[in-house]
Amino acid sequence: MASKFAGRRNLDFLLYEVHDIEGLFSLSYFEDHSRQTCDLAIDTAMKLARNLLYPYFKEMDEREPVFEEGQVKVHPIVKTMMKQWGEGGWLSSSLPFEVGGQQLPVAVHMACSHLFGAANFPATGYSGLTTGAAHLILSHGTDEMKDMYIPKMLAGLWQGTMAMTEPQAGSSLSDLASRATPTGRGYYKIRGQKIFISAGDHDGVENVVHMMLAKIDGGPPGVKGISLFLVPKKRPEADGTLEPNDVTATTVYHKLGYRGCPITQLSFGDGDSCRGYLVGEPHRGLSYMFQMMNEARLGVGMQAASIASAAYYASLEYAAQRLQGRKLSSKDPSLPQVPIIEHPDIRRMLFFQRAITEGSLSLLLQCALYADLARAGDVRDRERYELLLDLLTPVAKSYPSENGILSVSQGLQILGGYGYCREFPLEQYYRDIRIHAIHEGTTGIQGMDLLGRKVMMKSGRALEFFAGEVQKAIGEAEAFEELKPYCTRLQEALEKCRAATMHRLTFAMKGQMEIFLADATLYLELFGILAVAWQWLLQAVAASKGLRDDCSDRNKNFYKGKLHTMKYYFHYEVVKIQGLAARLLESDALMVEMDNSLFDD
Amino acid sequence: MASKFAGRRNLDFLLYEVHDIEGLFSLSYFEDHSRQTCDLAIDTAMKLARNLLYPYFKEMDEREPVFEEGQVKVHPIVKTMMKQWGEGGWLSSSLPFEVGGQQLPVAVHMACSHLFGAANFPATGYSGLTTGAAHLILSHGTDEMKDMYIPKMLAGLWQGTMAMTEPQAGSSLSDLASRATPTGRGYYKIRGQKIFISAGDHDGVENVVHMMLAKIDGGPPGVKGISLFLVPKKRPEADGTLEPNDVTATTVYHKLGYRGCPITQLSFGDGDSCRGYLVGEPHRGLSYMFQMMNEARLGVGMQAASIASAAYYASLEYAAQRLQGRKLSSKDPSLPQVPIIEHPDIRRMLFFQRAITEGSLSLLLQCALYADLARAGDVRDRERYELLLDLLTPVAKSYPSENGILSVSQGLQILGGYGYCREFPLEQYYRDIRIHAIHEGTTGIQGMDLLGRKVMMKSGRALEFFAGEVQKAIGEAEAFEELKPYCTRLQEALEKCRAATMHRLTFAMKGQMEIFLADATLYLELFGILAVAWQWLLQAVAASKGLRDDCSDRNKNFYKGKLHTMKYYFHYEVVKIQGLAARLLESDALMVEMDNSLFDD
Repeated sequence: MASKFAGRRNLDFLLYEVHDIEGLFSLSYFEDHSRQTCDLAIDTAMKLARNLLYPYFKEMDEREPVFEEGQVKVHPIVKTMMKQWGEGGWLSSSLPFEVGGQQLPVAVHMACSHLFGAANFPATGYSGLTTGAAHLILSHGTDEMKDMYIPKMLAGLWQGTMAMTEPQAGSSLSDLASRATPTGRGYYKIRGQKIFISAGDHDGVENVVHMMLAKIDGGPPGVKGISLFLVPKKRPEADGTLEPNDVTATTVYHKLGYRGCPITQLSFGDGDSCRGYLVGEPHRGLSYMFQMMNEARLGVGMQAASIASAAYYASLEYAAQRLQGRKLSSKDPSLPQVPIIEHPDIRRMLFFQRAITEGSLSLLLQCALYADLARAGDVRDRERYELLLDLLTPVAKSYPSENGILSVSQGLQILGGYGYCREFPLEQYYRDIRIHAIHEGTTGIQGMDLLGRKVMMKSGRALEFFAGEVQKAIGEAEAFEELKPYCTRLQEALEKCRAATMHRLTFAMKGQMEIFLADATLYLELFGILAVAWQWLLQAVAASKGLRDDCSDRNKNFYKGKLHTMKYYFHYEVVKIQGLAARLLESDALMVEMDNSLFDD
Repeated sequence: MASKFAGRRNLDFLLYEVHDIEGLFSLSYFEDHSRQTCDLAIDTAMKLARNLLYPYFKEMDEREPVFEEGQVKVHPIVKTMMKQWGEGGWLSSSLPFEVGGQQLPVAVHMACSHLFGAANFPATGYSGLTTGAAHLILSHGTDEMKDMYIPKMLAGLWQGTMAMTEPQAGSSLSDLASRATPTGRGYYKIRGQKIFISAGDHDGVENVVHMMLAKIDGGPPGVKGISLFLVPKKRPEADGTLEPNDVTATTVYHKLGYRGCPITQLSFGDGDSCRGYLVGEPHRGLSYMFQMMNEARLGVGMQAASIASAAYYASLEYAAQRLQGRKLSSKDPSLPQVPIIEHPDIRRMLFFQRAITEGSLSLLLQCALYADLARAGDVRDRERYELLLDLLTPVAKSYPSENGILSVSQGLQILGGYGYCREFPLEQYYRDIRIHAIHEGTTGIQGMDLLGRKVMMKSGRALEFFAGEVQKAIGEAEAFEELKPYCTRLQEALEKCRAATMHRLTFAMKGQMEIFLADATLYLELFGILAVAWQWLLQAVAASKGLRDDCSDRNKNFYKGKLHTMKYYFHYEVVKIQGLAARLLESDALMVEMDNSLFDD
C-alpha cells in the first residue's frame, strides 16, 4: 500500500482556486456554509478514508462476497462502514436540511466521495447507491415513502439500489419485461428478473430498497411504458417489523474486480407476493430514473478518477524510490543507479497518470458546480447550467472511465514485473477500474447520448454554451504570456470539434441516423480531450495567478507542476484530436453498409 | 468457452497467399518440406490445441501454482502437456535434423505456436522457454552440453529457462550482481538471486536447465563483464542420476494473470555448492543471450496476438448471438431485437480486434519469414533479411502486446457486464495479456531499442531496407483500383515516419541523447502502426488476387472481409499517426529538462 491515495492540496486548488466554490456561499441555499464548514467536511472525510476505508481495500478484494443459502454475505466491515457513513451524515451531506441533510454543495460532497473512492472504491458502491436512491425518493416519492424509507437509508441501516437491467434487455431499456399489476390496495404486484444490481443484496444492512423499473400491465410499449417502483426487500409494517417481500437474490457474480461490493441477480415475485409502490406518475419512470442515473454517471466518473488518483500516487511513490539504470548522459556502470523517476519515459507515464486524474477531477467538479448553480444560482442562468451539465455528463462519465483504464495501466507498467503481481496494489486498481466503462451506460451508450441527444437538444444550445465557456477560458488565459501557445491549441481543438460536429450532423439532416452515429464513440473521445484541455487551461490560469514571488516553495512547486502537467496534456494528449477529427470528417459508411458475412472465415 | 480460438483459414492465407512460404521449399535447407508436410504439422497442432490445451485454459488459471516446502507445484496436466509436446516433436520442430529437430520453417513453427497460445497461452510458457534454451545450447554450448541436455529438454522431460533479471537490476542488465567463481575443475561456482523467472521451477518436469547470466570474478564492469552459464537445478551425473545443484526456488509470484505458469524467484549457491558451466566465451554472455531474447520477443508478440485472437473469436461469437436493441433506422419496440453485431459501434470494436489480431499475426509471420531467409536464403541477401528482422523485432514484440491489451479490452466491452465476469472468458484474456508489455523487455525498452539502436545501426541501412519493402508493397497494390487510395495513405504514413525519424536524429547528432530518446515509446507506436498498415496492404493485395469470379462463396466472403478490415485499419488506426508525428516533430525537452519537485503536492 502506498502512503498517499489522493491529493488534499489539489482538491483545495480545484475547489477554491479553479472553480471558486466560495462564490456559492453568497447564494441563499448555501448561506449556512463557508470555506470553514467545507474544509471541515473534507478533513473529516480524509480521516474516515484513511482510517476506516483504506485499511480494508485489499482485504475486501480478497474476501469477496459469497452467496450462501439465498443470502449474499459480505465482509463484516461493510456494516461498520455503512453505520459510520450514516452517523457522520455522509450519505446525506448534499441533501437538503429538511430531510436531515447538510445541504453542502454537490462539489464538496463529490470531493469527499473522491477521497472515499481513492481509499477504497468498492466500498463506495454501498454508499453512492443509497444516497442516489434516497434522493430519488425525495424528488418523486410520496410523503409516506419519505418518512418510512429515507431516514433508515440515510442512517446507513438500509441499502438503496438502482434496479434497471434485465437479462434479455441489457442496454435496451425499451425491452424491459418486469411487470407491475395494479391491486387497488395501494401497491402493485411485481414480477421480474434484474441482473447486475450493485449491492442488490447483502448482510451488511437490515433491508434493501430497490428503485425498480417495471411496466404496468396494459401500458404503452417501449420506454413510454416504463414506471418506477419502490420495492423493498422487506416491507416495513406499521408496528416497525420487517416482513419478507418476495425478493430473492439468485446469484452473485464473480467479477474481474470491484469485488468488495456484490453485484447480484435478483428475482421479484417468484411467490406472487412481491409488492411494489409506484413512485410518481405511471409510465414516467424512465425520466425519473434519469435523475438517479445522471447522478450515478457523475459518480462513476468520480470513482474512476479516484482509482486513477490512488494508482498515480502509488506509481509516483514507487518511481521515486526504485533505483534502476542511469541517465543516458552518464551510463558509467560504476556510478550509482538513479531512481526511475529520472527517466523521461517514466516521467511521461507519470504525467499521463496525473493529467488524466487531475483533469478528470477538474471536469467532474466543474459539473458539480453546474449542478449547484442549476439548483441555487441566479434563476435566469439555471437553464444554461442545466444544459451544460446535461451535455457534459456523458463526457464526465466516460472520459475518466476510459482514460482511467489507460492511466492505471501505465501506472502498472511503471512498476514493471511488480505491477503484474498481487503483492503490489496496481493490479487491483487495474481490475477495479475496468468496470466503469461498462456500468451506468457503456461508453458506446454515452457516445450516442452525447452526439445523438445532447448535442442536438434545444437546437444545439448546450454546445453553444459550452463553446462559450471554452472561449471564456481562452480569453482569461491570454493574459499570461506563457499560456498563449496553449490558447491557440485549445482554439484549434475547439474548431476541429465544431467541424466534426457539423459534418456528422449533415448525415442526421439527411435522415441517415446510422451513419450519423456510427462513430459516436470517437466523437465522445474527441469531445473528452477537448473538455479536459479546457479544464487544464483553467487550471493553468489559476496556477499562473497563484505563482507569485512571495509564495512558499511548496506552493511554487505545486503551481509549476500544474503548468507542466498542462503542457504535457497539450503536447501529448490534445494532438490525438488530429486523428480523431480526420476520421470523423470522412463520409463513408464503412461500419454501416456492410454484410455480417464479412466476418466469416 | 467459445467454440473457436484461432482462424485456420487465416493462417493458410497468411502463410501461402501473403507471405509465400512455399518459396522456401526450393531452398536446400528446407528441401525435405512441402506444403503437405507443413499443413500436416499445422493440422496436428490444431488438434493438440483443441483437445489437450483448450480444455485446461480456465482450470489452470483457477488452480494457480503453489509454493510448498521449497517446491513449486503446478497443475498435473502440465506434465502431460510437456510430454506430448516432446513426443510430438513440437519443442524441436524448427531445430535442425542434427539434434532430432524437424527443420520446419520458423514461420510454420510460429503458426503452430499461435494455435497453442490461442488455446492456452499460460501453457506455452513451459514449451517456448524450453525450445529457446535448447536452441541457445545448440548455438553456443559444448558438445558435451548438447549431448547431455538437449535430448532431455526436447523430449519435454527437462524445463529450460532464461535467468536474467535480478532484484536490484530489473531492466538494467549492467547492474547484474550474480557471481561466477572459476574452480579450475570444469565448472564455476555460482552465487546470486534471480527474479521473475518464468517456469523457473515446477514439478511437471524432472529437471530445470537455467540459461543464466552472471559475472566472472574480476571481469570488466557493466554489460561487458556478463557471461552465460548453464546452471541445472539438478546435475546429471555420469551414471545418469541427478544430484541437487544448490538452486532453490524462494517464492512464486501471485499474478494478475498468466497463472497457469509459475513465475519464480530463485536463489543460486546458498550452500556454496552451485555449479555453473560456461557457455561460449567469457564476457560475451549478453550477445549470446540476445539470440534467445530475440526469439522470446517474437514469441511474446505471437502469444499476445494469440490471446487477442481467442478474445476476438469469443467476442464475435457473442455478438452474433446476443440479441439487444434495434437498428436506429427501425426502433419500433414491437419488432424483435437484433443481434448486437448489427450495431455499427459493435462492428467497429470487432474490426478493431480483428485488425489488431490479423495485422499482428501477419507482421510476426513476416519476421519469421525473414528469419528463415536469413538462415537459408540466398547468401547475398542474408544480411538484408537479418537487418530487417533486427529492426522489426521490437515492433513485432510490442505492437501486439500493447494493442492486444486494447483489443482484448474492446472484446470485453462487447460482452458488457458479462465481459467483467469470471463466468465468461474475456476477463481471463484481459488479465493474461497484460504481461506481454512487461516481460522480455518492457515497451519502453523496445522503444529505445528501435530508435536508439536499430534505426541507427549500420548507418540506417535497416530502415532503408524497410522503406524499400513498404514501397514494394505499394507498387504491387497500385495494380488494383480499389487499393489505390490506401497506397496513398501508406505512402503518407511512411513519409511521416521518415520525417519523425530525421527530426529525432537531429538531437542524436547534437549529442542530446536524452531528448533524442525521450519519446521513443511514441516513435515505436508510430512505427508499429506503419508496419501493420504495410502488412494490411499486403493482405489486401493477396485478397484482391484471390477474389476471382470463380471462387467459392466462402472464399469470397473471406477475401472481402480482408479488404474491409484493411479499410477499417486505414480509416481508424492509420489516422493516429497524425497526432504521433505532430508530437515527434516538436523540439522541446518537456520530459528531460525538469525538476522532480514538479511532482510535489
